[in-house]
Amino acid sequence: VVRIDGSHFHRVEPDFVRSFRFESKLLPLTWVVVRIDGSHFHRFSDVHEFEKPNDEQALKLMNSCAVAVLEEFEDIHFAYGVSDEYSFVLKRESELYQRQSSKIISAIASLFTSTYVIRWGDFFPHKELKYPPSFDGRAVCYPTYKILLDYLAWRQVDCHINNQYNTCFWMLVKSGKTKTQSQDYLKGTQTREKNELLSSQFGIEYNTLPLIFRMGSSVFRSKEAVAVKNGVVVSGKKPKREGEVVVDHCNIIERGFWEEHPHILSYS
Amino acid sequence: VVRIDGSHFHRVEPDFVRSFRFESKLLPLTWVVVRIDGSHFHRFSDVHEFEKPNDEQALKLMNSCAVAVLEEFEDIHFAYGVSDEYSFVLKRESELYQRQSSKIISAIASLFTSTYVIRWGDFFPHKELKYPPSFDGRAVCYPTYKILLDYLAWRQVDCHINNQYNTCFWMLVKSGKTKTQSQDYLKGTQTREKNELLSSQFGIEYNTLPLIFRMGSSVFRSKEAVAVKNGVVVSGKKPKREGEVVVDHCNIIERGFWEEHPHILSYS
Amino acid sequence: VVRIDGSHFHRVEPDFVRSFRFESKLLPLTWVVVRIDGSHFHRFSDVHEFEKPNDEQALKLMNSCAVAVLEEFEDIHFAYGVSDEYSFVLKRESELYQRQSSKIISAIASLFTSTYVIRWGDFFPHKELKYPPSFDGRAVCYPTYKILLDYLAWRQVDCHINNQYNTCFWMLVKSGKTKTQSQDYLKGTQTREKNELLSSQFGIEYNTLPLIFRMGSSVFRSKEAVAVKNGVVVSGKKPKREGEVVVDHCNIIERGFWEEHPHILSYS
Amino acid sequence: VVRIDGSHFHRVEPDFVRSFRFESKLLPLTWVVVRIDGSHFHRFSDVHEFEKPNDEQALKLMNSCAVAVLEEFEDIHFAYGVSDEYSFVLKRESELYQRQSSKIISAIASLFTSTYVIRWGDFFPHKELKYPPSFDGRAVCYPTYKILLDYLAWRQVDCHINNQYNTCFWMLVKSGKTKTQSQDYLKGTQTREKNELLSSQFGIEYNTLPLIFRMGSSVFRSKEAVAVKNGVVVSGKKPKREGEVVVDHCNIIERGFWEEHPHILSYS
Repeated sequence: VVRIDGSHFHRVEPDFVRSFRFESKLLPLTWVVVRIDGSHFHRFSDVHEFEKPNDEQALKLMNSCAVAVLEEFEDIHFAYGVSDEYSFVLKRESELYQRQSSKIISAIASLFTSTYVIRWGDFFPHKELKYPPSFDGRAVCYPTYKILLDYLAWRQVDCHINNQYNTCFWMLVKSGKTKTQSQDYLKGTQTREKNELLSSQFGIEYNTLPLIFRMGSSVFRSKEAVAVKNGVVVSGKKPKREGEVVVDHCNIIERGFWEEHPHILSYS
Repeated sequence: VVRIDGSHFHRVEPDFVRSFRFESKLLPLTWVVVRIDGSHFHRFSDVHEFEKPNDEQALKLMNSCAVAVLEEFEDIHFAYGVSDEYSFVLKRESELYQRQSSKIISAIASLFTSTYVIRWGDFFPHKELKYPPSFDGRAVCYPTYKILLDYLAWRQVDCHINNQYNTCFWMLVKSGKTKTQSQDYLKGTQTREKNELLSSQFGIEYNTLPLIFRMGSSVFRSKEAVAVKNGVVVSGKKPKREGEVVVDHCNIIERGFWEEHPHILSYS
Repeated sequence: VVRIDGSHFHRVEPDFVRSFRFESKLLPLTWVVVRIDGSHFHRFSDVHEFEKPNDEQALKLMNSCAVAVLEEFEDIHFAYGVSDEYSFVLKRESELYQRQSSKIISAIASLFTSTYVIRWGDFFPHKELKYPPSFDGRAVCYPTYKILLDYLAWRQVDCHINNQYNTCFWMLVKSGKTKTQSQDYLKGTQTREKNELLSSQFGIEYNTLPLIFRMGSSVFRSKEAVAVKNGVVVSGKKPKREGEVVVDHCNIIERGFWEEHPHILSYS
Repeated sequence: VVRIDGSHFHRVEPDFVRSFRFESKLLPLTWVVVRIDGSHFHRFSDVHEFEKPNDEQALKLMNSCAVAVLEEFEDIHFAYGVSDEYSFVLKRESELYQRQSSKIISAIASLFTSTYVIRWGDFFPHKELKYPPSFDGRAVCYPTYKILLDYLAWRQVDCHINNQYNTCFWMLVKSGKTKTQSQDYLKGTQTREKNELLSSQFGIEYNTLPLIFRMGSSVFRSKEAVAVKNGVVVSGKKPKREGEVVVDHCNIIERGFWEEHPHILSYS
C-alpha cells in the first residue's frame, strides 16, 4: 500500500497490468522496411503553398530529414523517398529495439518529424510553418533480397507514373483547364501519349525534367569511388568521405545500381 | 512493362509485394493506451540543462504537446504524463486508422514531437534546441474499465515513488554528497523516512511541493462546472468552455476522480 | 561441438533458432472462443452416407466429443455446436497454455478429433470409418459479455437459417426435383414461405422438428436444480450431479437462458 | 429480425462480431515449420506401458502418422520426428489455408491425431488404447535455408543427446539403481563417458543401436534412385515409386544429406 497525500492507494499489481502488452517482434533475418507517409499532406501542401506538381524545396527538406535518420540509426542502410513518403530499409541482422515494430516505427517517424520542423526554415526561409506536420508509419518484413528490390522498384515505378501524370495535369490546369477537365483529358492515356502531350502542347521534354522529380531520392552511405564515378548531384557535389550519407536520384529498378553498390544491402 | 529513361523495367507485381504487410489491428471494444517515451532523454535533459529533480518548464512543454494531441484526435479521451512519458487513452469504440496499431502509435508520437519542437521557444525562450528530440511509442489494449484505471494508477504510483526518491537524491547531491553517496544513503529507505529526511535535513515538507511534480499531469476535455468546482490550476486559470482540453494535477488513483468526471471515460 | 557417428556437427545455436518463435498470446481478461470446423466434411458426410439434411447420430457423436473436451479442460465453460462446427468458450481469466493461441487451438482440435475416432463405433456400430477425419480451428477474443453473447446468438441464428433451408432443400430433392431445381425454387424465399412450403407440400410443421436440429447443441456444466427444472433431453434424462457436463438444445439467443444459468459465464 | 419458435431475436450484427477475428498470417516466402508435441505423453506412455528408453512400435506409429500427413498435404516437403514430437516443413511458396497459422497448425495436429488413433491397432494389436491421445502444435517461420537446416539439426542434436542419456538412465534403472541414483550418477557426464559406461557396464556399443533411436525419423518424398542408393530401411525395403512418401533414419545435420536430396527443399 502506497500513501499519497494522506490517502491509501488500492493495490495495483504492475505485473498483471504489464501482462496485457503484446510483443510484436519483426521476424529475425528479414529486411525490415519502415515506411512513413505525411498525414493529411494534401492539406499541408495547400496551406504552405507548395509548388505543383513538385516543390523542389519540400522534397529537399524531406531528403534532409531522411539523411538525419540514417545518420542516427546505423542499422538503416538505404532509404527511398518520393512525394511525402519515405521508406527506410534496415539491414537483415538488425536488433534495433530488439526488433519491436512499434518502437522502431515510432522512433523513426518521430525523429523524421522533429528534423522536418527544425530544418523547415533552412529550406523555406520566407515561409512560416503554420501548424505541426506529422507522419504516420508502418513496417513490413521482406525475407528475400529479390522481393526487397521488388518493393523498392514498385515505389520508383509509382514515382514515375505519378510524376508523369501530375506534370501533365498541372500543365493543363495552368493552361486554363479546370481540374475536372484536366482529369478527363488524361483519362486512359498511356506513357507515350503523355510524353507527346507535354512535348507538343507545352514544349516539355519529359526526360529532361530534373532527376529528383522523375526518379525520387535514394539515401545511403557512400563509398568515395562510387560517388565520383557517378558524378552524382549529391548535396554539395564534393567527393564524399567514406560512410557519409548521400542523396542520389538514380534508377533503382534496374539491377545495375545494386550490382555497382554491393555494400548497401549486402546479400548473403 | 514500364519504361523509364529508355529502359524496360522488370515486372513488379504490386499485389505480391503488398501481401507481406501484416495487419496488427487492436482488438475492438478495448481501451487502447498509447504510451510514448522520450528517446535517450537522460542525455537530452543534460544537454539542455533541465532543472533537477523536475524542470517545470519542460513538464509544461510536455503538457502543451499532450493538449495538442487531444485537440487533434477526438477519440483520445484522457492522457496522463509524468517526466518524459505520456499515456494516451482512446475510447473503446474508436476506429481511428481502423485500429491499426502502427499508424495510431506513429501518428501520435509524430504529432507530439512536432509540437514539442514548434513550442520549445514558448517554454524556453532563452534556450536553444540543440538537436531534434524524438519519442518512441507502443500500444496496449485494456478490455475492462477496472484494469484501465489500474494502468493509470500504476503510472501515478510510479510518478510518486520516483519523484520522492529524486527529490531526496538531488537535495543530497546539492548538499555536497556525490551521486554514489546519495544512492547509498537512500538505499532501502521507506516513504516515511524519505519524507523525514526532506523535512529534517532540508526543511522541505514533501506534501507542499507543487502538485505537478507529485501528481503528474492529467489531460482531458472539461465540463465547465467541473473546472470551476475544483479551482484547478488549468492553463490560464480561467473558466473553460465545455469540451476545451484542460490539464489538471489530480489524484487519479482513487475512484473519486473518475466518479466525479464520468464523461471522461464513459463506462458501459 | 557434438559428435554423432564419428562426425562433428556444425555448431547450432538453439537460442537463435528459438528466437524466430513469435508469441501469439490471447489478450488477458477477454473471453476466448475457439471454433473448430470439420475439414472437407461435405465429402466426409457423403462418403459416410450421413442422412440429409441432418444425421442425428453424427450430431450426437459431435456432442459426445464436445463433452469430452469440457471434461478435460476445466477452463472451458460453454460450447455450442451445429453441423460440423463447434465453438468453445474459455472463461475470461483462463491461463490455459499461458493463453498461447496455437497451443490452445491445436490441443482442443486434437482432443476433439481423437474422441471422434474412438467413439465413432458407439454411434455408428454398423458403419466403418473409412478415412481419418480432421478439424481445423481458430480463436477469437471477445472483450465484453454482450459481444460474446452476440457471437453465440449469431451461430444459433445461422443454425436456424441453414436448417430451415436444408430441410426444404432435401425435401424437394427427395420429392424428385434436381438439386439445381430445388435451389432455384428456394431462391429469395423468406422464413414464413419456407415454413408454409414444408407444411403444405410435405406435411411438416417446422416447429415440431427435433430441437437438436433447430437449436443446435449447448454444452455446459449443470447445476442439478436447473437440469430438473428444464426437463432437458440431456444424455440419459436422469438428474445430473452438480458440475456434470450436460448437453441441451435451448434458445441461447434470448437473454433468459443466460439469466437462468448465471453460473455458466459468470459476468463481472 | 429473425424469428425462432415464435420469439423475435435481438439484432445481431455478424460483421461486427466477425471484426474481432485477427489474422495471424505466416510471412510469405518463408519456410513454415509446424511442430506438434504429444500432450502429457509422459503419462500416456506410462499408461500404455511403452518400452523404455524407446518403444519402437510407438515410434513407428508416429512415423506412420507423419507419412499420412505428407500424403494429405502436398505443400509439406519434409518432416522430422523424435520421441513424441514431429516437425513439418512447408515449402516456402505454400499458400495452404492462405498461410493462416491457426488453421494450418490445427489441421495438421488434427489429422496426425486422427491417424494415430485409427492405426493404433496396427502397431499395438494386443494393447487397448485407453484414452484419447492429443497433440498440441505451433508454427515458426524461417526466412533462410541455412536457419531452417539449423532448426532441423537442432532437433536431431536433441534426439542424440536425449537418447544417449535415456539409454544410460534406463540401463542403470534396470540394473537395480533407483531413478534418483541413476540421475545423480549421470550428472555432468560427457558423451564419451556415457558411451564408455554403456560399453563397460552393459556391453552396449552405442553406435550399434538402431538408427531410428539414434537419428530420429525423416519423412519425405522419394526419388527412386536415391532410395536405392542409400539402401534405406524404408517401409518394406522395396524400391519406391517416384514421389512416394518414405521414412529414413539419416544424418540431417551434415549438409551431405541435403546436397544429395536437393529435390526435398529446393532452395532458390
